[in-house]
Amino acid sequence: MRATVDPDMGARVHEAICGLGIAVRTNAHVQGLETGDGRVRRVVTADGALPADIVVLGLGVRPNTALAADCGIPVGVTGGVPTDLRMRVVGPSGPVEGLWAAGDCVQTTHLVSGQPVHVPLGTHANKQGRVAGINIGGGYATFPGVIGTAVTKVCDLEVARTGLTEKEAHDAGFAFVTATVESTSRAGYYPGAASMVIKLIAEKRTGLLLGGQIVGREEAAKRIDALAIALWNRMTVDEMTALDLSYAPPFAPVWDPVLIAARKAADTVHHAG
Amino acid sequence: MRATVDPDMGARVHEAICGLGIAVRTNAHVQGLETGDGRVRRVVTADGALPADIVVLGLGVRPNTALAADCGIPVGVTGGVPTDLRMRVVGPSGPVEGLWAAGDCVQTTHLVSGQPVHVPLGTHANKQGRVAGINIGGGYATFPGVIGTAVTKVCDLEVARTGLTEKEAHDAGFAFVTATVESTSRAGYYPGAASMVIKLIAEKRTGLLLGGQIVGREEAAKRIDALAIALWNRMTVDEMTALDLSYAPPFAPVWDPVLIAARKAADTVHHAG
Repeated sequence: MRATVDPDMGARVHEAICGLGIAVRTNAHVQGLETGDGRVRRVVTADGALPADIVVLGLGVRPNTALAADCGIPVGVTGGVPTDLRMRVVGPSGPVEGLWAAGDCVQTTHLVSGQPVHVPLGTHANKQGRVAGINIGGGYATFPGVIGTAVTKVCDLEVARTGLTEKEAHDAGFAFVTATVESTSRAGYYPGAASMVIKLIAEKRTGLLLGGQIVGREEAAKRIDALAIALWNRMTVDEMTALDLSYAPPFAPVWDPVLIAARKAADTVHHAG
Repeated sequence: MRATVDPDMGARVHEAICGLGIAVRTNAHVQGLETGDGRVRRVVTADGALPADIVVLGLGVRPNTALAADCGIPVGVTGGVPTDLRMRVVGPSGPVEGLWAAGDCVQTTHLVSGQPVHVPLGTHANKQGRVAGINIGGGYATFPGVIGTAVTKVCDLEVARTGLTEKEAHDAGFAFVTATVESTSRAGYYPGAASMVIKLIAEKRTGLLLGGQIVGREEAAKRIDALAIALWNRMTVDEMTALDLSYAPPFAPVWDPVLIAARKAADTVHHAG
């Protein structure tokens, strides 16, 4: 399964989850589930059995494209249904008149890598549904693609990402540098200031932002939207250092963590030559 | 004094502050302060006197440019010292070799209106000081200007703005439309979801974002950075509807309030023709 964040950021999430008193076991091959009295009792792994009251299987998501196949539509390389910008299904000889698709079943374009991807998130499904609906109704709307933004929360731990991870950037063919900074959600002296870590990935030489990841507490994760919009607009990390972001002590240090990360990334690009 | 937000958004702030049990009296001309036993006792206004333990005067900020005047540098139309992009002071015949200025004393450029402005905020002062320092040290850095981002907090009420207000847009010569939406900081069903209002100002016909204002509670104000970066990159509100912003129920409705505002603004631009 594709990792959502890089291993160094994942290690921070791992550590924080362990700090909540949760045992995390990775690479533990599950061989079976033992049941008794009509419910699960133990999970059997290669390293031994673990008692269990509930088992949640997070196995990823695959698009259900049987309907498309029945219509003679070949699925894309990601297993999703290919569409054009207006969400018209694309068949062997181009967009098919009167045939539309939107949501978790479709393949879309990653605007940073330029590659087709399958990203089954509710926010994309909503946008695609709206675009398809407008076009079906005779209007005009387009869904240009995605840049891989996602956010989640484990108790008070916030994790967010946008763009490409290191592995994804590598697989897409980019040469890149990374910069990781630790800062705070508010001015350091302000009550409730919480630590956050931001990692940026920028293209070597050009300094174009390729991706960002955030691990922090309250008020951390939504800063990913700032990175997402910078990325969407093909900003370089050097340009980003001048951004006029909001500052007041309850909301950020005088240099917002996003700007501190951009500065470090810009310096890294510069020194990498 | 220039209003920081439009009257309709200011009314929401007014109402929220009154809700905190604070009496707000605007347009109350202060005629004098009465003292007794070595401290202030009453504020005398045209409408009568008010008892007072502490008086805080918020009178705005004017740049102290005496040093520049002593050097024969004429101040700009805003009263601030004009500089070039590298923070070199600009005299009557161009940038002056070896003379630099940064911080609350300088005049800068508003990147939306194109007009010179004086915006004495710590975040600009920090950036300008860094740019001046890098250039003085033989490096290269520029401060392109500002877009009018600001944020503040009154108890748990958050207020933020970026770009131009309606009055500023009008004064700059723009024809524009506005769109105001009410949404929530999290999915409506998620604990702690708080109401927030976002207002966007977009150029008529082109739909270019010109400004945004937010009034809300926790997790509201920092969304102004998303608007600030969209504005910085000259996005239209229509383009903004496709932005890949982060979604999970603890962080936003499935359409982030920023996207809902962009949709309404785009529809408004469209219908205004």
